[in-house]
Amino acid sequence: MVDVESSLLVIKRGCDELLIESELVERLKSGRPLRIKAGFDPTAPDLHLGHTVLINKLRHFQELGHHIMFLIGDFTGLIGDPTGKNATRPPLSREQILENARTYKEQVFKILDPDRTEVCFKSAWFDDLGAAGMIRLAAQHTVARMLERDDFSKRYAAGLPIAIHEFLYPLCQGYDSVAMRADVELGGTDQKFNLLVGRELQKHYGQAPQCVLTMPLLEGLDGVNKMSKSLGNYIGIAEAPREIFGKVMSVSDELMWRYFDLLSFRDNSEIAGLKKSVTDGRNPRDVKVMLAQELVARFHTRSAADEALEEFEARFSRGVLPSDMPELTLQVGGAASVVQVLKQAGLTSSTSEALRMIDQGAVRADGERVSDKSLLFEVGTVVVLQVGKRRYARVSLL
Amino acid sequence: MVDVESSLLVIKRGCDELLIESELVERLKSGRPLRIKAGFDPTAPDLHLGHTVLINKLRHFQELGHHIMFLIGDFTGLIGDPTGKNATRPPLSREQILENARTYKEQVFKILDPDRTEVCFKSAWFDDLGAAGMIRLAAQHTVARMLERDDFSKRYAAGLPIAIHEFLYPLCQGYDSVAMRADVELGGTDQKFNLLVGRELQKHYGQAPQCVLTMPLLEGLDGVNKMSKSLGNYIGIAEAPREIFGKVMSVSDELMWRYFDLLSFRDNSEIAGLKKSVTDGRNPRDVKVMLAQELVARFHTRSAADEALEEFEARFSRGVLPSDMPELTLQVGGAASVVQVLKQAGLTSSTSEALRMIDQGAVRADGERVSDKSLLFEVGTVVVLQVGKRRYARVSLL
Repeated sequence: MVDVESSLLVIKRGCDELLIESELVERLKSGRPLRIKAGFDPTAPDLHLGHTVLINKLRHFQELGHHIMFLIGDFTGLIGDPTGKNATRPPLSREQILENARTYKEQVFKILDPDRTEVCFKSAWFDDLGAAGMIRLAAQHTVARMLERDDFSKRYAAGLPIAIHEFLYPLCQGYDSVAMRADVELGGTDQKFNLLVGRELQKHYGQAPQCVLTMPLLEGLDGVNKMSKSLGNYIGIAEAPREIFGKVMSVSDELMWRYFDLLSFRDNSEIAGLKKSVTDGRNPRDVKVMLAQELVARFHTRSAADEALEEFEARFSRGVLPSDMPELTLQVGGAASVVQVLKQAGLTSSTSEALRMIDQGAVRADGERVSDKSLLFEVGTVVVLQVGKRRYARVSLL
Repeated sequence: MVDVESSLLVIKRGCDELLIESELVERLKSGRPLRIKAGFDPTAPDLHLGHTVLINKLRHFQELGHHIMFLIGDFTGLIGDPTGKNATRPPLSREQILENARTYKEQVFKILDPDRTEVCFKSAWFDDLGAAGMIRLAAQHTVARMLERDDFSKRYAAGLPIAIHEFLYPLCQGYDSVAMRADVELGGTDQKFNLLVGRELQKHYGQAPQCVLTMPLLEGLDGVNKMSKSLGNYIGIAEAPREIFGKVMSVSDELMWRYFDLLSFRDNSEIAGLKKSVTDGRNPRDVKVMLAQELVARFHTRSAADEALEEFEARFSRGVLPSDMPELTLQVGGAASVVQVLKQAGLTSSTSEALRMIDQGAVRADGERVSDKSLLFEVGTVVVLQVGKRRYARVSLL
């Protein structure tokens, strides 16, 4: 067991809120392995890095010697959207859920040690609870306090419907904590209310209330919106090594440090050292490469990470890729052709030169040779354009 | 099958509200026996006449050839008060509930024909529903609409707690209607909201929504408050013949007609005839005797009813009991001794005469000879006092 102070530093790294720190300190002092809970929806087994923020935090706890409980919400998955209105949440069959759980574990065990991770299924206690148990559970909370939850109070004030079962879900989540005797529950910042319900239910059932640790939502590649599949700003953990590598290399230097905090397994002091080296003049690109390699190695292999680096460097003419590559933002107001962008970016002196350079095979976009003169870029694209060996720019189209 | 119009007259007698009459007419026209539901709490098997108002209405339906379903809320009885705050609603065991149900049936079958009454247990479907079924059920109603129920909206506005399970009970009651495929549900006026929830759930489950018939709460012997055990203004159906008889005889003439409507099995035209006879000069006491005899006969036997009448008349000196017995209200402001009351009521000219008459055995209270000179009457007592053969008064103490 690591000492309490160091444990706390690791635990709090990157977190949004820890409630209640003094209680956690007391439990850490006890020296016993704490029971750490995090719940996952079994409907989306295709994870991206945003999902791993929580799992990484579980890993921190695991490395500190605590007992990790990875909870799969199969019980609620079987129900789906009980109003039947949300087509994106159909009820799942037991088979689908088990298959999803398998895929989930396969991915999660790239981060967690399978031998020291307990995988729990919500159905283990909810199948036995019965309608009567559900009523008893519902008796432990009042309507007024449930309506204090931010999204409920807004919807109620706006006259938008709240179905009554929505009041039951936080109670179900809280009951999980009772059944699992959780010492700590992890969740996204949007989960805070539900995590606190767990504390109250545990008190009611005579248990010490769990500590609550909320983790921030990870920003996507754009550095603005949260990482999500539908926004296309994500890095899937099942993506090919070169994809993961290239996407990491495409993030801004500022976002890179955020990703270090939330995604790297390097310890705090090592990251502080890297930051200092960049402040002292080191090319941030070199540090970004380290992050990219770490992530590829995690989800594939160390050698895949090395290959991805080599390939990436080859694409951008090994050793030539300038550290001071100009960054340009062009206002195009719509899709723009490669020819137009080359000229506007000043990489060619004219449209006709642009066309000629493409003909000569001297133009690359993100390292790929451009042969199609009518190639269009959408608004929002960020692309490294290269003309010959010396002209470069990273161009953002707005 | 009786014709629809006559059926409707019988069904609506004494009822508070019928929703929706046109729908009921349609179903009556179909000629098939309708499925009539009424639910009862298994915690209070000791019935008084107030409880029988609903059962009498079931009898009306039964006499019209419909299918009576007497529902025992064993499922909720097992739960008791799930907050544990209400000591008067402890969880019952299966054995207690079965015993209560047995006592219930014994009493109810003094009114209903056991061979044509289906006794249903709520647990028959709720034991199988499970926590998931409860969640699906809760999804069928919104928080805002539930808060429209009168008592909920008042408590919410007053900042009084509403536990979430209280939102589930109306849904459970509604689900009973689905499981029982009820055509009509009966309930007290205070049940209207819950009965309407049943309509909505049936629609959701693809059934024609039940009609809803609410019955008024029966006034107790005082004619003001609803009949209840705790107020002491009740007639228990298990009480001795002379008790039932005497209590009925003690109600006001006005309340007597209300009791005729809600408690007598005499048909509308017969009751109208009785009313007319009283208007034409018949002593209302004679009519009250008919009601008292009917009720004693129902819960005991015809001969017990005859005996009760004889005994009652004997007590009040057969043929002498004046129809114009004075009614007095005395402001005593506390418990009052029989001596004091006799004097204040003018039945004796002095305290010493009162004491002497008691010594001579000439004083009766409610027909019983008074020997204890220190006998006290509580405030609220209504008692017929008799001194010798000619002095009478019905005295109310305030």
